[in-house]
Formats: sequence, structure tokens, C-alpha cells
Amino acid sequence: MKRTAFFISDGTGITAETLGQSLLAQFENITFQKLTRPYIDSAEKARAMVQQINTAAEKDGMRPIIFDTIVNQSIRDILAQSDGFMIDIFSCFLSPLEQELNASSSYSVGKSHSISHSANYMERIEAVNFALDNDDGARTHYYDKADLILVGVSRCGKTPTCLYMAMQYGIRAANYPLTEEDMERLQLPAALKQYKSKLFGLTIDPDRLTAIRNERKPNSRYASFAQCEFEVREVENLFRRENIPHINSTHFSVEEISAKILVEIGVERRLK
Amino acid sequence: MKRTAFFISDGTGITAETLGQSLLAQFENITFQKLTRPYIDSAEKARAMVQQINTAAEKDGMRPIIFDTIVNQSIRDILAQSDGFMIDIFSCFLSPLEQELNASSSYSVGKSHSISHSANYMERIEAVNFALDNDDGARTHYYDKADLILVGVSRCGKTPTCLYMAMQYGIRAANYPLTEEDMERLQLPAALKQYKSKLFGLTIDPDRLTAIRNERKPNSRYASFAQCEFEVREVENLFRRENIPHINSTHFSVEEISAKILVEIGVERRLK
Repeated sequence: MKRTAFFISDGTGITAETLGQSLLAQFENITFQKLTRPYIDSAEKARAMVQQINTAAEKDGMRPIIFDTIVNQSIRDILAQSDGFMIDIFSCFLSPLEQELNASSSYSVGKSHSISHSANYMERIEAVNFALDNDDGARTHYYDKADLILVGVSRCGKTPTCLYMAMQYGIRAANYPLTEEDMERLQLPAALKQYKSKLFGLTIDPDRLTAIRNERKPNSRYASFAQCEFEVREVENLFRRENIPHINSTHFSVEEISAKILVEIGVERRLK
Repeated sequence: MKRTAFFISDGTGITAETLGQSLLAQFENITFQKLTRPYIDSAEKARAMVQQINTAAEKDGMRPIIFDTIVNQSIRDILAQSDGFMIDIFSCFLSPLEQELNASSSYSVGKSHSISHSANYMERIEAVNFALDNDDGARTHYYDKADLILVGVSRCGKTPTCLYMAMQYGIRAANYPLTEEDMERLQLPAALKQYKSKLFGLTIDPDRLTAIRNERKPNSRYASFAQCEFEVREVENLFRRENIPHINSTHFSVEEISAKILVEIGVERRLK
């Protein structure tokens, strides 16, 4: 049994989708087909949406669930005529907020994921550039400008984490891969030593690392379980010996790893 | 006058923050200090939060606004004793959903931004790797595997857009910078011709491009307004001549550009 859910917005759809996903995740035994429909910002598009919703209703034999963040009331009124079950995200909270803040909502469209101000935009692009330029130990002479330097074995998730932190928080995160030679030397590479306070370690279960490396270089020594296990053991020893805070990325998403790192090291995000 | 807003969660805080930001954006005349507090998952942490909230209340002389997605009722009960004004995101919607779905919420923590299943995780990492490997025209022989190839002048926003689409939607997006030589040839580079159906163009206002390039290479010919204007004009002519769908990125965030591209080309996201 499958149930259709629509995330409908007059903007990007990110808010409707994020909240909708969170709420639906609480119903683990139901399978949802999730459809995001951004930029529904005219009566005409709303009427086309009603048709899509009604078609899904007929096919499923059940009302689709509609999560919407449409601000314009006349567009919402059209959607309300569909056969869907509407979860009205904004109006549920806007009037209590208006009361508490003693101010009127501007009822303006697509505010939250727009370019709010140019400074924020530049911070973010700079942070993404920083992550790219300082990825995988490519350069180490800009570490003085880094908010954070992620360290760990190859393919443990450093790059996606740095990019996510740049995009989401504007944090300038470099990353440096610890290699077999670093481990044999039993100490931190020289480039990292003076920035020890910025280091954060990522580790990973050896089986998971084996699987990920095999996607990249199948049947190589690099991807063998023995090699992965050796590197992970050594790097974890290094983290402990050098007192580098670290987490195991195996069971966490990039969002979770990033949020946990922020909590742990207390770096301030640059995007407001 | 400044008002404090807390986004509090037992997980990453992404849902509370996303919805809270959207709602607060509707009150343009009020300045908020926004604080995200993830992983508030014990009575002890909740009591520490209450102290933070009460301190802010005293400092501001007004109740802080609390957006929370905490699932555990006894932790929520502690927060409810604070001096904040609570916007109770989950409970507002969970009981109507339970009724409509005829199922009980599992009231489980941090579901929405966890690794839901391994296939999704791999899709996402693959997409990020694809974007990195095929960034800035670095390689063109994997374009058969691309969902999308972004084209445009240097520094018009191609790379962040590709990375965001990879991270958020699992879409494999390559990007190719159109250079002066391409424009002088008045035609698409050979590497792109056979993948014309995958092309999407980004353009940008010349003044904005000048500002962005000046951050990178101050006072260069590359960053001069004349050069930027020339390149933008030529590339827009190329898009029109070759019938390549395109948008102007100047006034849009990476999220908006990505959402608009998806709507326009109808590529299916790979993450469910």
C-alpha cells in the first residue's frame, strides 16, 4: 500500500519538503511516494496541481497528503479544492507568531531560501571555494584561514562533509588525508602540527570503508579489508594519542556529522 | 530591538531551523538573533537549554521564540517550563496525520536527516564525486553518465550549483566553462555537441560577475567590466542561437537556481 505525498510551494519547496519528510518519517510502516512541486505561484499552475493531486487520489484509492507553504491565499484556495488532505504549515503558526511578535506577517513569497543579503552569499561562495581549494591536502598554506581541518583516512567522508559545512553554514573547512606514511611515522604531519586546535578526526568502520573504496578501485590493495582495517586502527590510535576530537561517520549522514562537529568544537557558523 | 529565536532539536536541528527561518522571514521588520541547538536529547541538556532561554529572555526583555522538533515528551516538558514562547512544530501536525493515515507515529528521534538507507547514501556520495571529478571541464569523457551539464562563463555559479544538486538531489551534474575561444568560434565546443539535450546555461549580470571575479583576481583583465560584459553577451547569444535553456543566476540563491533547473528540465532526482 502506497500513499502519495506532495510538498508544494510558491518558492523552492525546501521548507515544505523538509518539514514533510520529518513528519512522514514518523510513520515507518507506510510507504510514501514523495513529490516536490516548487514554484506553484499562479492560479493556472495551482489548477494543474489539483489535477495531479486528484489523479494520484484516484490511483491510490486514498487522499494524497499535501504539505504546502504557499503564502498567497487565492492560490491556496484553489489547492484546497483538490481531493488531498492538506497540512497547512504556515497558517498554523503565523497567527500565533503575529500575536507574540505584535507584528503582521508580510505574506511574501519565497523569502527563506532567497539571497537574503549579498554578504551572506559571498561568505557561502567563499566557503565552497575554500573547501574545494583545500580539499584532500591539495594545499596546506591556507590553514591559518581555516575554521576547521578535517583529518582521516582516504574515503572516510571528509570531502562531502567539508562541502556541506561550507554550503549550509559558511564554515571554511579544509581536509587532509592521513596516509600510510603518516601512520608509520606515528605522528601528525608537519603541516598539521601548528593547527592542532583546528583538527577534527573522522573515522569509519573498516567494512564500510572497504565497500566504499571498492566502488572506486575494485579489487585493489587500497580497497582490501586488511588495508582498511590497518589504516583505521592506526588513525584511531593517532587521534587518541594526539587528543584529537573525532567521530565515527559510519552510521551518520553528512548532515548529522556536520551538526555533531559543530556542537563538539563550538565553531560559530558564518551564515546568519 | 532584537529578539532571540532558538531552533531546538533532538537531532540535527535542520527541520526546526528550516521551518523557523521560513516563518521568521515573514516578519521583515524584526531583527532576530537565531540560535540552533541540535542534539538536545537528555533531561540534563534540556535543563541547560532552559537556562540559556531564560538568560536571553532577561537580556532581551522579551520572550525568546522557540521552534522545536523534540519528540520525547518528558524532554519537551522541561523546555516548556522556560520563559520562551514555544512553537510546537511536531505535535501540531502529528495528531491530524495519525488520524488521516490511521497509524501511530513512532515518536522516534532524528529520523529525517539520518542515513535512511545505504543506497541513498551511495547515490549521494557518487553524485558529489561526479560533480568534483567533472567540475570546470576537467573531464569530458564521462558526460554520457551526466544527468545534466551546466555551461556558462567562468565564475557564474556553476560549481556551487552542481555541488548543491548532488548533495540535495543526488543529481549527477557536470559543468563546463565557456571560454573566450569558444565564443569566438561562435559554436558549441565539440565535447558538448553530442550532449546538447543535457545542457543548461547559467548567465549572470556583468556587474555582479565583475565583483565576483575581482574577489578572485583583483584588477585583472579577466575581472574587468568590459571583459565580463563581452563574455556574458556572447554566451547569451550562444544560448539563444543553440536553443539552450538558461537562467540568470544574479538574484537567486543556489537553492533557487537548482530548484528552477529541475523544474525546467524535468530531470528526476535520484534521492528518494
